[in-house]
Amino acid sequence: MLINKTNPHGGDIYNNRVLYDFSSNLNPSGMPDAVKKAVAESAELSLRYPDAYCHKLRKKIAKSENIPYERIICGNGAAELIYSYAYSLNKDQPALIISPTFCEYENALKAAGIETKHLILSEDNGFCLTEELIPDDLSEYCAVFVCSPNNPTGMTVKNEIIVKLCNLSARIFADLCFLDLSDCPDLYDIPALIEKYPGLTVLKAFTKNYSMAGIRLGYAMCSDIAFLEKMSEKTQCWNVSATAQQAGVAALDCVEWLNSSVKMIKEERKRVFEAVSSVGIKVFRGKANFLLLHSELDLKTLLLKKGILIRDCSNYIGLSKGYYRIAIRKKEENDILISALKEVVE
Amino acid sequence: MLINKTNPHGGDIYNNRVLYDFSSNLNPSGMPDAVKKAVAESAELSLRYPDAYCHKLRKKIAKSENIPYERIICGNGAAELIYSYAYSLNKDQPALIISPTFCEYENALKAAGIETKHLILSEDNGFCLTEELIPDDLSEYCAVFVCSPNNPTGMTVKNEIIVKLCNLSARIFADLCFLDLSDCPDLYDIPALIEKYPGLTVLKAFTKNYSMAGIRLGYAMCSDIAFLEKMSEKTQCWNVSATAQQAGVAALDCVEWLNSSVKMIKEERKRVFEAVSSVGIKVFRGKANFLLLHSELDLKTLLLKKGILIRDCSNYIGLSKGYYRIAIRKKEENDILISALKEVVE
Repeated sequence: MLINKTNPHGGDIYNNRVLYDFSSNLNPSGMPDAVKKAVAESAELSLRYPDAYCHKLRKKIAKSENIPYERIICGNGAAELIYSYAYSLNKDQPALIISPTFCEYENALKAAGIETKHLILSEDNGFCLTEELIPDDLSEYCAVFVCSPNNPTGMTVKNEIIVKLCNLSARIFADLCFLDLSDCPDLYDIPALIEKYPGLTVLKAFTKNYSMAGIRLGYAMCSDIAFLEKMSEKTQCWNVSATAQQAGVAALDCVEWLNSSVKMIKEERKRVFEAVSSVGIKVFRGKANFLLLHSELDLKTLLLKKGILIRDCSNYIGLSKGYYRIAIRKKEENDILISALKEVVE
Repeated sequence: MLINKTNPHGGDIYNNRVLYDFSSNLNPSGMPDAVKKAVAESAELSLRYPDAYCHKLRKKIAKSENIPYERIICGNGAAELIYSYAYSLNKDQPALIISPTFCEYENALKAAGIETKHLILSEDNGFCLTEELIPDDLSEYCAVFVCSPNNPTGMTVKNEIIVKLCNLSARIFADLCFLDLSDCPDLYDIPALIEKYPGLTVLKAFTKNYSMAGIRLGYAMCSDIAFLEKMSEKTQCWNVSATAQQAGVAALDCVEWLNSSVKMIKEERKRVFEAVSSVGIKVFRGKANFLLLHSELDLKTLLLKKGILIRDCSNYIGLSKGYYRIAIRKKEENDILISALKEVVE
């Protein structure tokens, strides 16, 4: 929780007059009815402490991800697990962050007293992490943080690059929170990767997939059980609310709903990409449920006057003023954004 | 979240066949209907990220506690704030814990890499912290942890003792999570104490007062805003779910409900105290919504056979086999526990 600082993230609809929120990257289909029902019904369960082991939920995730139950740890949102992970690292070595990317890796590492270094991907190669950009030696780092599809660029990291990182570094933190909503949910064989590389920790979130950001639920997968144990000791044992556990169990039954969302996002992203490009704004060809733009105009301020909130990306390490991120929403909402962008440019 | 370890706390109804849970210390009146309603209605809000500042909730707590808004930090249960607090301390000095007490102080300090020392109160003086027991010099400690009423003994710490601790140590962590349900909710002038002692941090929980342990909501109060800022940086900014924020706002309107619960607990504790004492089991005269017992019998195992879960306190630092904690529940439930204890003793 922030006390007096400015919220650096998107989604802060509480301090802005917002009619349309394009600043947070949630599933545009919203929350499945089954999840809403589970939340509503969780009141009766919430009289008691939540299950400290998240038994039911982990069993269901194990089935859904096809990995053993013991290799799963749940958190109060994926964001909490970033902190537990950072607190579990060796503080005597710096961590490497592939940037520009989600600032919570940096924040969590700072909170844990770990120095951070950045491998900054440039716009010239489309913000892509290619093999030649990876240093020959990564042994000096306690961990390497990589996000795929990456927030805010939308670029994915090839499977062979993940493998190369795993071979070069003792610990890789792969944030795949946007993978299930992307064009390529099957980009990686996650069970095989975590089986082969005990140093690999994969992060996923319910937040985005099922639009349940307010409920807070994420999970991490790793075959190094002792390391997961260590992570679990970095937080209280009741970190995942009964509401979140119920909602998560219900969400994992909504496979069809997720699949149709992915299809819709794919079509809409293509349409938004073309429309925004045709207005003369530079759009990067990301693969996620959001797009990175570049414009000389102060798009955030101009759109906020119309009640539309987008994410100003100038506070990302490796980006500067002029970069903005827009979520892909439903067709009607995207049309409103496209029209507003047209008006603003003209 | 625990991965493979045994849950050291009460309330683990998930791994036991439990008809009556006397192991966790929640308000026996249960959850107010207004809170249940707020939880149910939170589904619609939970599509979005929660307010990272907990604006509404903190304003309401500020009014209820009569302290400025800026002096309040909210957490994912009070337990999370114990960890944020520990992570914010100076790691070069040990912390002092007044024991036997809640084990999460010890766990959080260990997680933060801080050495712990214990001032162990003995049964001989009724587990009370008296002036003469306090060392003349506390400057060697980064913080002193004190709980009042104390879990599991139920003993309160006098106001002048809190003042003495504040005068002797740079940082005092006073866990008052059971105060509002105790015999003496007005034992301290909290606004005046935190105004006068910026090193004092007071912890409170919604968990116990409104029986919403599954929802996870607690708060801390401190007049050292820079320190609260530091605490807030030790966790993600969305640590308090939208559900918890809604539930908390609703709960603070249930003043009458809380008052009548306190009255009922007081009467029932007196009755349970006398009944259990008359069976020949030693009961300590605590002032909270639970009682500490001592018996040579394995009360936990014997009662579990009858579907009743109580808290075995042998894993508390400073206690040993033979100590048990029972919650004060509603009259009908207490009668069942009393009968079961009679049967077990006979």
